[in-house]
Amino acid sequence: MSEKKKIVQCVPNFSEGRDLEKIEKIVNAFRGKDGVKLLDYSRDEDHNRAVVTVVGEPEAVKNAMIEAIGTAIEVIDMTKHQGQHPRMGATDVVPFIPIKNVSMTEAVELAKELAKEASEKYNLPIYLYEKAASTPARENLAQVRKGQFEGMAEKVKQPEWHPDFGPHEIHPTAGVTGVAARMPLVAYNVNLDTNKLEIADKIAKNVRHLSGGLRYCKGMGVELKDRGIVQVSMNMTDYTKTALYRVFELIKIEAKRYGVNVVGSEIVGSVPMEALVDTAAYYLGLEDFSMEQVLEARLME
Amino acid sequence: MSEKKKIVQCVPNFSEGRDLEKIEKIVNAFRGKDGVKLLDYSRDEDHNRAVVTVVGEPEAVKNAMIEAIGTAIEVIDMTKHQGQHPRMGATDVVPFIPIKNVSMTEAVELAKELAKEASEKYNLPIYLYEKAASTPARENLAQVRKGQFEGMAEKVKQPEWHPDFGPHEIHPTAGVTGVAARMPLVAYNVNLDTNKLEIADKIAKNVRHLSGGLRYCKGMGVELKDRGIVQVSMNMTDYTKTALYRVFELIKIEAKRYGVNVVGSEIVGSVPMEALVDTAAYYLGLEDFSMEQVLEARLME
Repeated sequence: MSEKKKIVQCVPNFSEGRDLEKIEKIVNAFRGKDGVKLLDYSRDEDHNRAVVTVVGEPEAVKNAMIEAIGTAIEVIDMTKHQGQHPRMGATDVVPFIPIKNVSMTEAVELAKELAKEASEKYNLPIYLYEKAASTPARENLAQVRKGQFEGMAEKVKQPEWHPDFGPHEIHPTAGVTGVAARMPLVAYNVNLDTNKLEIADKIAKNVRHLSGGLRYCKGMGVELKDRGIVQVSMNMTDYTKTALYRVFELIKIEAKRYGVNVVGSEIVGSVPMEALVDTAAYYLGLEDFSMEQVLEARLME
Repeated sequence: MSEKKKIVQCVPNFSEGRDLEKIEKIVNAFRGKDGVKLLDYSRDEDHNRAVVTVVGEPEAVKNAMIEAIGTAIEVIDMTKHQGQHPRMGATDVVPFIPIKNVSMTEAVELAKELAKEASEKYNLPIYLYEKAASTPARENLAQVRKGQFEGMAEKVKQPEWHPDFGPHEIHPTAGVTGVAARMPLVAYNVNLDTNKLEIADKIAKNVRHLSGGLRYCKGMGVELKDRGIVQVSMNMTDYTKTALYRVFELIKIEAKRYGVNVVGSEIVGSVPMEALVDTAAYYLGLEDFSMEQVLEARLME
């Protein structure tokens, strides 16, 4: 038997959202390479930032990613960068996400390999964050990126903020890069038949981790003005531990307290098959079901 | 953009379930070929029959299938075959099943191409059945196979049973082969908290097509003696039109009438991802959800 094919996702964020030619140059690193599949990219002019989604074999994705970091260094000058989104480098962040036959431990190893190789090749300081973080203080990206590009020249010199790889000084034009391993995020929103934002907010507080709710759930209330309703807008940060159906049912239960109803939900962007298969298995009360029974899971072996 | 990868499944049944060496010879046609993936095979000594599950690119699967038919002709002698399962040929049936980026029309075309090529190459009479059938009278495999191998010598000579491809006489040792295109079957069972088989039988009659129920549902009551319960045992013949959750909810509703409860359900064997994603989308009330949002669906493009 051949070894099962490993698949990781990588969602690098680059600090260029306006100059299409530059973005294309960077994105080209992910095109026409064996074992690398560019799923899509989006850019935001206000954020002045591009977000690329790539999947493929770990080694191939890592090598393409190193090439992309090199191109970003060539075409982006952070000393001239302006944008609404927090950023600290030309290649701002590089999260690796285990998708298939890859453990989180392997994704962390891959993040470290990339960080080592890219830092040596480009003399680029790199912080590891989330599951790849070297200390708990570095797990949260917001903490790592605090001060942004403009504050990094000083920050990297502080002993507690010495980069995990690379020099203790910023790259003069490319700043600092964050490299991580994390679970896939699922953007999941549940709609309520009320226009009262405070109800969505209260329910969000009940179900999210921050204020006492489910461990891998972040959330807040959001108004859908055109529909005259509100929603509990969430990021599910580990669907394998905090299941979609669990937060959905919990929101239905909480909504009762306010005399409102759940009228539907939505998944924004992509979702791993397993998150929905698990949901179906719950509602159908499936006994002894294995993901291996899903034909598509077998096809990707 | 490259064209999306097409994937079909093929589940040939061969009339040999006892001689492992012969079975392996046949199955070898599906090994080590680009674009062909042998998922598994099972054999049954009482049935004296082997069922092989293969997936891959249509052309590659067809070519491997033609090779397997040739090997089956070499190693199986139907004049000496005995087994409990109805059968009419060495390669008894060859159903093609569209899995991804393949329409039923394309699967029918593929079935016809295989039938044409194999009949010419081996001078083998072939009936098309199910979605590939040339007349409604040939849609049902049981009708086509009626008379079995022993009766085929006469049957193929009758004008209304002239084979769709190949000679109007059986292959002396390999008989006749049926080739089809059909939707994936999902074997789906719903368990009840009673040991009364007649209740499972009554509910099966209410929900199955034959007796007035859902169009793409076959079903019957079955006892699970070791657990002291019964189940409605079903074959869902087109999950895209008769959804799993619909029959599950309907069985819950019917069970009430008898004062029993649904205690769970099970999927036996493989199930296409879409059947479960659709189920999850129903129970979560997902708005505007597209299969393209499932990461694994994108991975297989």
